[in-house]
Amino acid sequence: MEKLKRCAANHPPLSPIRFIERAAVVYGGSTSVVYNSTHFTWSQTYQRCRRLASALSARNISPGDVISVVAPNIPAIYEMHFAVPMAGAILNTVNTRLDARTMAAQFNHCHPKIVFADYQFLPLVTEALRGTNHKPSLVLIQELINGRELVPTSTVTATTYEGLLQEGDPEFETRWPEDEWQSIVMNYTSGTTSAPKGVVHSHRGIYTMVMDALLTWGMKSQPVYLWTLPMFHANGWTFPWGMAALGGTNICLRKFDANIVYKSLHDHRITHLCGAPVVLTMIANADPSERKPLRGRVEILTAGSPPPAAVLLKVEELGFSVTHGYGLTETGGLVVTCAWKSEWDRLPAEERAKLKARQGVRGFGLAELDVKDPGTMDSVARDGVKMGEIMLRGPSVLKGYLKDEGSTGKAMEGGWFHTGDVGVIHPDGYLEIKDRSKDIIISGGENISSVEVESVLFSHPMIVEAAVVARPDPFWGETPCAIVSTTPAALGVTEAAMISFCRERLPHYMVPKTVVFMDSLPKTSTGKIQKHILREMAKRLPQSEHQSDKMSRLSKL
Amino acid sequence: MEKLKRCAANHPPLSPIRFIERAAVVYGGSTSVVYNSTHFTWSQTYQRCRRLASALSARNISPGDVISVVAPNIPAIYEMHFAVPMAGAILNTVNTRLDARTMAAQFNHCHPKIVFADYQFLPLVTEALRGTNHKPSLVLIQELINGRELVPTSTVTATTYEGLLQEGDPEFETRWPEDEWQSIVMNYTSGTTSAPKGVVHSHRGIYTMVMDALLTWGMKSQPVYLWTLPMFHANGWTFPWGMAALGGTNICLRKFDANIVYKSLHDHRITHLCGAPVVLTMIANADPSERKPLRGRVEILTAGSPPPAAVLLKVEELGFSVTHGYGLTETGGLVVTCAWKSEWDRLPAEERAKLKARQGVRGFGLAELDVKDPGTMDSVARDGVKMGEIMLRGPSVLKGYLKDEGSTGKAMEGGWFHTGDVGVIHPDGYLEIKDRSKDIIISGGENISSVEVESVLFSHPMIVEAAVVARPDPFWGETPCAIVSTTPAALGVTEAAMISFCRERLPHYMVPKTVVFMDSLPKTSTGKIQKHILREMAKRLPQSEHQSDKMSRLSKL
Repeated sequence: MEKLKRCAANHPPLSPIRFIERAAVVYGGSTSVVYNSTHFTWSQTYQRCRRLASALSARNISPGDVISVVAPNIPAIYEMHFAVPMAGAILNTVNTRLDARTMAAQFNHCHPKIVFADYQFLPLVTEALRGTNHKPSLVLIQELINGRELVPTSTVTATTYEGLLQEGDPEFETRWPEDEWQSIVMNYTSGTTSAPKGVVHSHRGIYTMVMDALLTWGMKSQPVYLWTLPMFHANGWTFPWGMAALGGTNICLRKFDANIVYKSLHDHRITHLCGAPVVLTMIANADPSERKPLRGRVEILTAGSPPPAAVLLKVEELGFSVTHGYGLTETGGLVVTCAWKSEWDRLPAEERAKLKARQGVRGFGLAELDVKDPGTMDSVARDGVKMGEIMLRGPSVLKGYLKDEGSTGKAMEGGWFHTGDVGVIHPDGYLEIKDRSKDIIISGGENISSVEVESVLFSHPMIVEAAVVARPDPFWGETPCAIVSTTPAALGVTEAAMISFCRERLPHYMVPKTVVFMDSLPKTSTGKIQKHILREMAKRLPQSEHQSDKMSRLSKL
Repeated sequence: MEKLKRCAANHPPLSPIRFIERAAVVYGGSTSVVYNSTHFTWSQTYQRCRRLASALSARNISPGDVISVVAPNIPAIYEMHFAVPMAGAILNTVNTRLDARTMAAQFNHCHPKIVFADYQFLPLVTEALRGTNHKPSLVLIQELINGRELVPTSTVTATTYEGLLQEGDPEFETRWPEDEWQSIVMNYTSGTTSAPKGVVHSHRGIYTMVMDALLTWGMKSQPVYLWTLPMFHANGWTFPWGMAALGGTNICLRKFDANIVYKSLHDHRITHLCGAPVVLTMIANADPSERKPLRGRVEILTAGSPPPAAVLLKVEELGFSVTHGYGLTETGGLVVTCAWKSEWDRLPAEERAKLKARQGVRGFGLAELDVKDPGTMDSVARDGVKMGEIMLRGPSVLKGYLKDEGSTGKAMEGGWFHTGDVGVIHPDGYLEIKDRSKDIIISGGENISSVEVESVLFSHPMIVEAAVVARPDPFWGETPCAIVSTTPAALGVTEAAMISFCRERLPHYMVPKTVVFMDSLPKTSTGKIQKHILREMAKRLPQSEHQSDKMSRLSKL
């Protein structure tokens, strides 16, 4: 047996860039990408990718080089998911919400050879590049009208995206990776708490993640996909490659609101979309005048935080079907999904929502999922109560952090990827996240899961957004502090009313001692509430009567 | 970048045996396997597999050992697809239609440590083992009634399958492969022409094949699958593992006819089944009294030879949806599928059938597919006319042939897997097989594709089965000889009528010069027509007036 060797015939590198070659054959005449008045077919998209890969190769881009792009969900960033690795290079999609200083720090860390900038972000990118110590080339992505570049009157002298495509050979031969471990993308984490780190993925990792994502979500050929999830966020959870695998249609949006989403759903007969729970909230809370009737079932995949039960019920009532999953930039995409059991259909709506708020079970691609005590590395009891750190093993787990052996080693300690998230495993084997490690509130020696308190707040009919963070307390150490936003009509909701609402639904120690009302909570570009900002705010709140109240209660203990 | 290393967290071996562990969590209470009165759930099936793997380990089975099974599609052979590799060993499923001599030759070649024999095949296996020079242990698989072993009155002293399970630990820890290149199965090819060879596949290969098969066929979770395809035939094209991945229900059948198939479809609400075109023919030609109405759309995946247009039309009319694919034991499953384009739905039924008879395009798992001149290794023109040998590269291509370096090297020559099949690539990129290499008929220097002639014969309303082979000819070298079976009502169909029917539809040189009528054509256990038998028969046909006819025509040239 030992003599049977790997060779070119039986061990070609696994890579997601193979999918577009296939799409050009099978779905060549079908629509690949739609962006306003621009429509491309799969054979056109493939040709455009080959042109770009060719032009990059001609500019001495070689394997291991990083190419960055700062753009919203437009055709160019979609194509770059194929073209950049087809030239052998590594794609770095940059969060468009960064400030110039942070962007410069990322460029200084990864040294891109070329930076592609959408015209809207040109001033930002130009400013960021002034702060870099190396000077990458700059390619300007101009607005596309009817598939052609809109040339503004003040024509810039920079190379443009479409100009680069014109240079390239449409018959370019892909530079296949020699080893599937070769890097394909590098993304900086948009963690709410920690400093950005460059997460590197391999062709193998992304390939397995794509297959997992398509199968887990039960997708069939030729879906119509609405780009509400930014492609710069963990590569749109790998769906740029997934849509090529299935020959689907990508509906690209520069920006969106409820009105645009409902119009797109209707006009393009959207079948699938992804997004953080904030997208679900937008859909649920849309004014009836903004809504359009759906023309078929629309599947939504959501992750980032558990969808609030009320929002979930509302969107399902509107005809959407929601799947909840869990992943990190480090896992390449969603590796845990709340796989639905047919017997749960018979439960009351609120029970269903509660089950669906759990993160779920590992997908086909993940080899192992466990909740462990990070000190002993022992598995915690699968009782739905005992918390531990969520740890994973899988082919889509990052290769490591770019130029950061320390963080890489720490993340992989003991041969498991440490997510930093805290969860429980229920007796039925389903994972439920109780907290991001740093979001745990420790009050009087008791661990309080902010997620659990938040879910109670969300069940209040007038609450739109809610976050619970630790507020330093001279006696308890920390107390839960709730920051909420309410519906416009919620005039009568007071701090005292919210606290008493929670008291009826939570153990006493978990009830927020402070409730702060805001018009809107601070969020990252991907819709995650920025808890570190709220935590800072909670630290600076003036001493209130609640705290003296606690001091007085102390005497009764 | 080079410092980012493979480790246990980010590079676990890809393996399809992970799927059953997941199925036990996600679908633990759902039905996994049904066999007559026997019903198992996924948690039971997983536990049975762990017990068996444990019992095997306790019997000193170690990685690299071969374990054989001779059984029809019963629960035991299903479970062995997981349990044997969970113990680290290699599964060898044996064709139940072999004679004792051939079976003994296979055992002498692969030296199984244990042979599992279904009671029905015990006399055959016992006889085969008398012809082996090593003595494997024998495990008897008895009939299952209500999930329990039926103990016959003349109790054998041999170890039984259920007895072995009782020995095993239901909490057994799987022996995961250390390397995904580790072998998982070894199948002898059931080639119609060449001597059997032991095809070895890796965990990696089968994993990628399963993902490909499920996605290509557009399967969603919890299908209900009817086992009409033998599991011993290329591991039922990997669907034993695929059903675990999706938490589907396996309806096992010891044997079947049209009546049993229709009853199963109805009673179990079957959603999917696979089979050679002979299964389609059985479904199409079933007596109306045998048919039962379908309770939903039933998907059929067929391969082995192109489904005849008339059969295709008939089964689609009955409510089945047919997908046609292509694969070999050497590719682990179907790696090419006739991916359907929505625009083809508008074509007339006969056009559709013609398009569907093409093998199609590579699946997600296959890296490359080409038709080449095996001499120069140049790709042939993609014009639908120029023939060449079909060559492949993919992760599911066999590791090699067991103890056969010569055949392995020859099959992988030039870094491509040589299928031995002859095909064309159409201008739209779709592959169409023109012939198995050995089935080409060379007549007067012209290559004649027997498939092409057969497809004309099949278009005759009275023809049920058809095969065209070479008949030696003193002048032309070879001439096409057709062997056909007809419908019972086809009394008026004569050799002359068939020849004139072909003359109207084929170039003259391709028209069969001989037509032989049989009640039924000889077939392998997997439904492939045994052309080598027909070829022998054609050699022995007495000289006919047709041949002298040709001689007389010669004078006119």
